[in-house]
Amino acid sequence: MEKSKVLELLNSLTIEEKIYQLVQLDGSLYSENAAVTGPKAKLGISDDVINNIGSVYNVFGAERLKKIQDDYLSKSRHKIPLLFCADVIYGYKTVLPIPLAFACSWNPDKVKEAMEMVAKETAVTGIHGVFSPMVDLVRDPRWGRVMESTGEDTYLNSIYAKAEVEGFQGNLDNSHVASCVKHFAAYGAPEAGREYNTVDMSERKLRQAYLPSYKAAVDAGCKMVMTSFNTVDGVPASGNKWLMRDVLRKEWGFDGVVVSDYAAIKELIYHGAAEDEHEAAKLGIEAGVDFDMKTPIYANHLKELVESEEVDINLIDEAVLRILNLKNQLGLFENPYRGADVSLEKEVLNCEENKELSRSLAEESIVLLKNDNNVLPLDKKKKIALVGPYANEKSLLGAWSFFADQDKITTLKEAMEKKIGKNLSYAYGCDVVDDFSLLGEFGFMVQKKVEKRDVKKDLEEVLKVAADADTIVLALGEHILQSGEASSRTDLSLNKLQVELLEKLHQLNKPIVAVLFNGRPLVLDSIVDKVDGLVEVWFPGSEGALALTDILFGDVNPSGKLTMSFPVNVGQIPVYYNEFKTGRPLVGSGHVGKFVSKYLDCPNEPAYPFGYGLSYTEFEYGDIKLDKSTLNDTEEIKATIIVKNIGNVKGKETVQMYIQDITGSVVRPIKELKGFKKVEIEPNESIEVEFIISENDLKFFTRDIKFEAEKGKFRLFIGANSRDLKEALFEYVE
Amino acid sequence: MEKSKVLELLNSLTIEEKIYQLVQLDGSLYSENAAVTGPKAKLGISDDVINNIGSVYNVFGAERLKKIQDDYLSKSRHKIPLLFCADVIYGYKTVLPIPLAFACSWNPDKVKEAMEMVAKETAVTGIHGVFSPMVDLVRDPRWGRVMESTGEDTYLNSIYAKAEVEGFQGNLDNSHVASCVKHFAAYGAPEAGREYNTVDMSERKLRQAYLPSYKAAVDAGCKMVMTSFNTVDGVPASGNKWLMRDVLRKEWGFDGVVVSDYAAIKELIYHGAAEDEHEAAKLGIEAGVDFDMKTPIYANHLKELVESEEVDINLIDEAVLRILNLKNQLGLFENPYRGADVSLEKEVLNCEENKELSRSLAEESIVLLKNDNNVLPLDKKKKIALVGPYANEKSLLGAWSFFADQDKITTLKEAMEKKIGKNLSYAYGCDVVDDFSLLGEFGFMVQKKVEKRDVKKDLEEVLKVAADADTIVLALGEHILQSGEASSRTDLSLNKLQVELLEKLHQLNKPIVAVLFNGRPLVLDSIVDKVDGLVEVWFPGSEGALALTDILFGDVNPSGKLTMSFPVNVGQIPVYYNEFKTGRPLVGSGHVGKFVSKYLDCPNEPAYPFGYGLSYTEFEYGDIKLDKSTLNDTEEIKATIIVKNIGNVKGKETVQMYIQDITGSVVRPIKELKGFKKVEIEPNESIEVEFIISENDLKFFTRDIKFEAEKGKFRLFIGANSRDLKEALFEYVE
Repeated sequence: MEKSKVLELLNSLTIEEKIYQLVQLDGSLYSENAAVTGPKAKLGISDDVINNIGSVYNVFGAERLKKIQDDYLSKSRHKIPLLFCADVIYGYKTVLPIPLAFACSWNPDKVKEAMEMVAKETAVTGIHGVFSPMVDLVRDPRWGRVMESTGEDTYLNSIYAKAEVEGFQGNLDNSHVASCVKHFAAYGAPEAGREYNTVDMSERKLRQAYLPSYKAAVDAGCKMVMTSFNTVDGVPASGNKWLMRDVLRKEWGFDGVVVSDYAAIKELIYHGAAEDEHEAAKLGIEAGVDFDMKTPIYANHLKELVESEEVDINLIDEAVLRILNLKNQLGLFENPYRGADVSLEKEVLNCEENKELSRSLAEESIVLLKNDNNVLPLDKKKKIALVGPYANEKSLLGAWSFFADQDKITTLKEAMEKKIGKNLSYAYGCDVVDDFSLLGEFGFMVQKKVEKRDVKKDLEEVLKVAADADTIVLALGEHILQSGEASSRTDLSLNKLQVELLEKLHQLNKPIVAVLFNGRPLVLDSIVDKVDGLVEVWFPGSEGALALTDILFGDVNPSGKLTMSFPVNVGQIPVYYNEFKTGRPLVGSGHVGKFVSKYLDCPNEPAYPFGYGLSYTEFEYGDIKLDKSTLNDTEEIKATIIVKNIGNVKGKETVQMYIQDITGSVVRPIKELKGFKKVEIEPNESIEVEFIISENDLKFFTRDIKFEAEKGKFRLFIGANSRDLKEALFEYVE
Repeated sequence: MEKSKVLELLNSLTIEEKIYQLVQLDGSLYSENAAVTGPKAKLGISDDVINNIGSVYNVFGAERLKKIQDDYLSKSRHKIPLLFCADVIYGYKTVLPIPLAFACSWNPDKVKEAMEMVAKETAVTGIHGVFSPMVDLVRDPRWGRVMESTGEDTYLNSIYAKAEVEGFQGNLDNSHVASCVKHFAAYGAPEAGREYNTVDMSERKLRQAYLPSYKAAVDAGCKMVMTSFNTVDGVPASGNKWLMRDVLRKEWGFDGVVVSDYAAIKELIYHGAAEDEHEAAKLGIEAGVDFDMKTPIYANHLKELVESEEVDINLIDEAVLRILNLKNQLGLFENPYRGADVSLEKEVLNCEENKELSRSLAEESIVLLKNDNNVLPLDKKKKIALVGPYANEKSLLGAWSFFADQDKITTLKEAMEKKIGKNLSYAYGCDVVDDFSLLGEFGFMVQKKVEKRDVKKDLEEVLKVAADADTIVLALGEHILQSGEASSRTDLSLNKLQVELLEKLHQLNKPIVAVLFNGRPLVLDSIVDKVDGLVEVWFPGSEGALALTDILFGDVNPSGKLTMSFPVNVGQIPVYYNEFKTGRPLVGSGHVGKFVSKYLDCPNEPAYPFGYGLSYTEFEYGDIKLDKSTLNDTEEIKATIIVKNIGNVKGKETVQMYIQDITGSVVRPIKELKGFKKVEIEPNESIEVEFIISENDLKFFTRDIKFEAEKGKFRLFIGANSRDLKEALFEYVE
């Protein structure tokens, strides 16, 4: 439709029809056969609203969505199609590794490709938009939603934000979907790691560390932005005019649709930001929140706000226009069914090609943390005992996977059997937790599923199986319910039952490899000294067990590197690589001994730092060479370094570049990631890796909150992770 | 001296003489007989500087200080007396309970009286100013310096700030000293509780929660302000012009002296805020830091900065003038020896009257946390076994007590023997820690002092002694080196040896009372279920063991109430009573079950909340009565509540009033302390406690950072602690 027609359409709507376009309700409104039967009364919404709402989320299936659209349009005066959105985050039917895992691939190209696959699976069912990517910066592993983030680094998160948006949206043809970046802003910084808790930080920190990843998504053309549940400078995001209008729209030029998070307009009341629903509606529309997700507050209050002249009708018009524009950009006026295709659906969903892509991403997401005495890769001819509560578990998809067919998942046991047949023996070992209440409100469902096992017999079996084997593979971790939304934890150690199981196995004096399925950085001090090999698998997605098996047996060389630090203990949180300089650094100042920035009982460094991950081969780094020692606003520096594979197998290495601004008008981080290259190197081969450093890499929010580079000296670091680095000096000059 | 004369004096100084006035060096400059012999070469300071410096700190003794002053003045062209300052924080010879303890008295009048006593002891030795009070708000018990703070509440800290400054300074006669409030600003909020680490928060939070206590000190007439080590909005406080000039001087009208913290001007370099000493000096003087403590940076660089016109001479003149004005206000030009009095010194220091005051404050500082089956008070006629590593310990003064005579301290064993004689039996039990490295760099000194003990025999003795007794009193805690500056800890549980000792005693099935000597809120889950009585003694000062003994035997009824929350575990940190409302509160919203702000594995509430403390009697609260239900900018509300002593002994109760602003232009705390009254009530007596609520109590930093009250509804809470409260509603109207 011509843009001018959209405006005409807007002008032809009654005020009610306009307001109802701003309503987004969930799919429970519709029965299985697509009729409106949802709990209308409970919602407090009239048929008139339902017959004119703008959007629905979390209904799936080409056939069903066509029916719903048909039914809706048949009752609609203006035939404005419904917008279908969905909580498809990192996979619909073919599920990828969780974002905290796939980030460890340091492979944004593959992530983009994977999101394109997710878009295709989603679009074919009739969905038009997905509530993804989640690009919240995270530094506190107590928070359950760190599993949805790509980690603790602003630069890396921004690169993944762009890759994901481009993957979802492509050219926005019928095999792509509109992307909704979330949660704007700084949802990843709840105080004490407690879900939905207050967020507070300086504007400087907000702009420097937290906002860039959302901006990267917006710059990549993201069509929607979702508000966050938290406060930003004291005002809940969903009623925060400064954030949504001044920053997002004016500064960044975003002209797409802003969606509230689930019921977030209503929650302005619990926050004490609005006295009642009337005021909540006012705050939301004033802030420029277009869709009121889940609640009837806009529907029930905007009209009276306009009539009482508390809200300018222009605010509503512009919100409706943004929604109509999005529908138009998606081609819905021409084809309200858009990508929905019943036969293609059967072909595309869970197809081999998609699964292969998920598996390939999983291979690069798995991180080898420890490999003493080269216990890995395993010898296919030897006897392996696979034990532990996650050894035969299908629940490997992470918290955002409730639309996938979990029953079809290959477990680690199945994958390993396929690989080595009878050389594998298996036993369960112990339950995932010793107290099912630790899994939260839905824990009882897990408890029900676990048959009444004989704990003593379980243990006997495990020890018997282990005693007969050459090597023990122990599958430990967190339950899927222990991470994700509303799954904050204060204790990040593995559950006691699991630790005790390891302790018993340890007494057998056999090589032990622990593989960890989990959604956050854990505190591993209770197990790390008792295993020879330690593999961080995360929740690895639909094909994760197969990818892991290939790694365990050396058919794939692991190359994943952490994007979030693993703390030594909970008392060290937050611990992250790019902390700021202090006046009394542990090393490098005149201060020695007691009066430096440290703990009495714990190192400053994390257990495993950002960027860390081992390989089955070894890479040797040469010294950094710079083509010159100064740069300015036009001339760049070229830095090169030789990386040599000095091991016996081919391997992929992510070479990382960090920069330290030695002196600034504000205190600067001890280092910041500014580039990386993932290269594959044959044994004995040397590769020269090149980085270009330009003025842009030196910019930050200066004392006056201007994004600029300041003249002066800088340290350049290149190496294998944020801790193990070569160093050079350069200067930024006039 | 006339004020005009001070200006004349300033104008008569050479630029060097001016600059050297800004130098403050530590007392190691002087030998025992008061001659300058300190490591001058090491300091990089010339004799010329030393002969003209403005101030020295941490030298004591009337006779010695007179000699130093005489010697200095004999070499001085202008006869400007030296200013003597000292790290006397909560006691010189007679030491008070640590601030985190005395805050639990909720008795600012007594604290004021006690600081007056400290001032008197200090002044008589010739000291003119003390680096106290420390008023930093603290919410993270990992930080070692929480022991120096009065706690987690802005309002209460402000009241204590005023009381302390008024106590130290009085009318500034010769028995009082100038007070230096510290550490400006927000030093109490280091990230991850790690000493000297980055501080970051919104300006809103800084102004709302952190700045008021410093302002209260300034408003009370405090003569000096000390900078903090941390950054404020990215700029280290000691080079932070906005903080020191815009906020402190312009907004608050402070015209006193700003002192850098120890070497903090130099640390601008390690922070990366200054490239070298030259720039560090420039940043410091530009920010308006008058005294450069500990370093020769001002001395060595300010002249060249003036000559190169990088620094305006006026900046130096105004700094010198502030220092000369302070010396003049202290009467030093008339009497350079001021309060120094050798004979009075003998009379005053550690006199009975002072000790009595310290003891009385300790009585009100000790907090009874648990008292099952009324195990306390103890029966003097029964047999008591006193055991544990702190039972016969003299080190009860906390981290800032190195000028006191620790050898004279009465231990708990001595105090209890005095009370019950042969009914007391004693055994040591176990060492304070199982690994002396946990005490930091000075731990080896403690280790040396502990004779090579026979651990097995120690334990046998304890069990024997305990088996013979009717009740066991177990003295546990933290070592003095585990709190205070540079003593951050990640594990806040009691040391394993102590927990194991308790576990063994617990098996005897006798009543156990644990008394805790420590400098921070601890995680007590490993002991709380195994004791009947639990007494938080803190580091209780010179007379603390005597005060504790009186409480244990019921000669004094405990009345202390916590001013900092005790966390359930480290993963819950920060946990404090006045947290902000969220959109998904655990209680009080439509949300139920999983999707509320909480943890999977830990409650939101602390183990012991702010304001909590038991008594040997019980107080019953009536309902709140309001004289009217609305207030405005002229009319106040009077709230009354009846508090009845329904127990058998007389007791003191601190009745606390909190207010909740139900809706605001920014999200407001769930409650905020706005008043308290400490009353003494006889058994069966009822007392009516009255609070006046005025507009002022409702003010906060609104969305535009204006300090105003907003119209609307409020909740009023009155009760025994921040958790157990009666409730009423009122409204603020036009």
